[in-house]
Amino acid sequence: MPQGFARMSVDRDAARYNMSHKQRGHCVIFNHRHFDQHTGLGERNGTDRDRDQAQALFTNLGFQVTVHNNLRVHEIKEKIQDLAFDVNHSECDALAVVFMSHGEQDVLWGRDGTFKPDYLFENFKADQCPTLAGKPKLFFIQACRGEGLDAGTTLVHQKTRDEIDSGYQAYKIPNTADFLVCWSTIPGHFSWRNTTNGSWFMQSLVHVLTRDSGHEDLLSMMTSVNRHMILNFESNCPSQHHMHGKKQAACIVTTLMRKVYFTQKY
Amino acid sequence: MPQGFARMSVDRDAARYNMSHKQRGHCVIFNHRHFDQHTGLGERNGTDRDRDQAQALFTNLGFQVTVHNNLRVHEIKEKIQDLAFDVNHSECDALAVVFMSHGEQDVLWGRDGTFKPDYLFENFKADQCPTLAGKPKLFFIQACRGEGLDAGTTLVHQKTRDEIDSGYQAYKIPNTADFLVCWSTIPGHFSWRNTTNGSWFMQSLVHVLTRDSGHEDLLSMMTSVNRHMILNFESNCPSQHHMHGKKQAACIVTTLMRKVYFTQKY
Repeated sequence: MPQGFARMSVDRDAARYNMSHKQRGHCVIFNHRHFDQHTGLGERNGTDRDRDQAQALFTNLGFQVTVHNNLRVHEIKEKIQDLAFDVNHSECDALAVVFMSHGEQDVLWGRDGTFKPDYLFENFKADQCPTLAGKPKLFFIQACRGEGLDAGTTLVHQKTRDEIDSGYQAYKIPNTADFLVCWSTIPGHFSWRNTTNGSWFMQSLVHVLTRDSGHEDLLSMMTSVNRHMILNFESNCPSQHHMHGKKQAACIVTTLMRKVYFTQKY
Repeated sequence: MPQGFARMSVDRDAARYNMSHKQRGHCVIFNHRHFDQHTGLGERNGTDRDRDQAQALFTNLGFQVTVHNNLRVHEIKEKIQDLAFDVNHSECDALAVVFMSHGEQDVLWGRDGTFKPDYLFENFKADQCPTLAGKPKLFFIQACRGEGLDAGTTLVHQKTRDEIDSGYQAYKIPNTADFLVCWSTIPGHFSWRNTTNGSWFMQSLVHVLTRDSGHEDLLSMMTSVNRHMILNFESNCPSQHHMHGKKQAACIVTTLMRKVYFTQKY
């Protein structure tokens, strides 16, 4: 197909993405527990549980899951490039990338150094990766984005009252549409992880998507993931006063133009 | 109420925000058509139509709408501070702010200068504005975020096959939860406006919310707004080759923890 054109995967006016291709698609999980000594970064205990839970979740959602542990930055970039430029996604519904590591404002850590999060996304724009054009590209990022802590506000009760049709046409989409980036925390803020049970965000993601993916769309589920995380988690480290009793809000960024439903694959 | 506490406006586990307060809430529209000569900025023709359409939309959604035209930066900041610190939102469901102006990467323009967009949001965090704690804070921003243009990719067809219950409890939320920021375009990119009909984003926002707010939640509607904008608008300036045939994707950022439904007020 000539440059600037790609196959239409769904009818122009459809309210839902086409999730009926032969395959659900690729899910790549980047899991970072160990870091090179020169980085001075601590081991991310609990992340292997997140990885195993995420692997089970995305497998159940129909994805073909690949796990990479503790990659160096150049290896992460290679894997992303392979996925964007060497893999043919023509028969796939979607792409999912899960990245779990240390992070700071505007950077993510590989085992040996940092890179800009945009690297994860930009190679999958419609003009860069035409076999994913018009398909949902889903990113889930468990990482700190700074050291900000959210002390929270306690709410005290007061009583209140209260398909896809076929057509013959062509249409143009922005190259930057169809992205969903689910950050565990807002810019500048810390992201909490329990060293046994895993991170608050990944635990909530797995819980809600396992429960609701049979009947709810992904963006609605991400609102529920945030609610689950907010209602069920609060930091508990009384010996470190400035870290105690803190809360965390997930930050979801979307350019999706249709709803994503993980309809069952038979 | 002591610091760090606020009234609970909705039951802890509700899937929807409480939209049954006495009032829907305040909607403030900042409309910028004219700029001081020293800024070198052009008149934003078409924005008055966006303003009028937005005023009608948010009035119909039940908001008490205030319009400010062509304010200076210090006046914008005063209005935001009044809204955050002087207004009591206890009887309100939500807050809506519409800001339409010129913008660049990471800044918005008042008539006489720039300011950081965060100023619009940060004063409404739960700890800063406790009468809006636990309530949806909705921002709609029509502005450029840079000069990036999206050439788009043409998709070519191939045939494919709460209700609120009361309870007696307290719960803590992150101060940064309950925000929805709807940007007309992605970071670094241009935002298109027709000098007669208004901006692509505001036209789409008004169209979809007018059509669907009786039965759909706001985040789902924003996905439809993006779809409407993508399918119905493309730049048409054949004499300026580099500006011709461009597309635009809206960028929605959410920390909402429940769905927003604009249920009818009686």
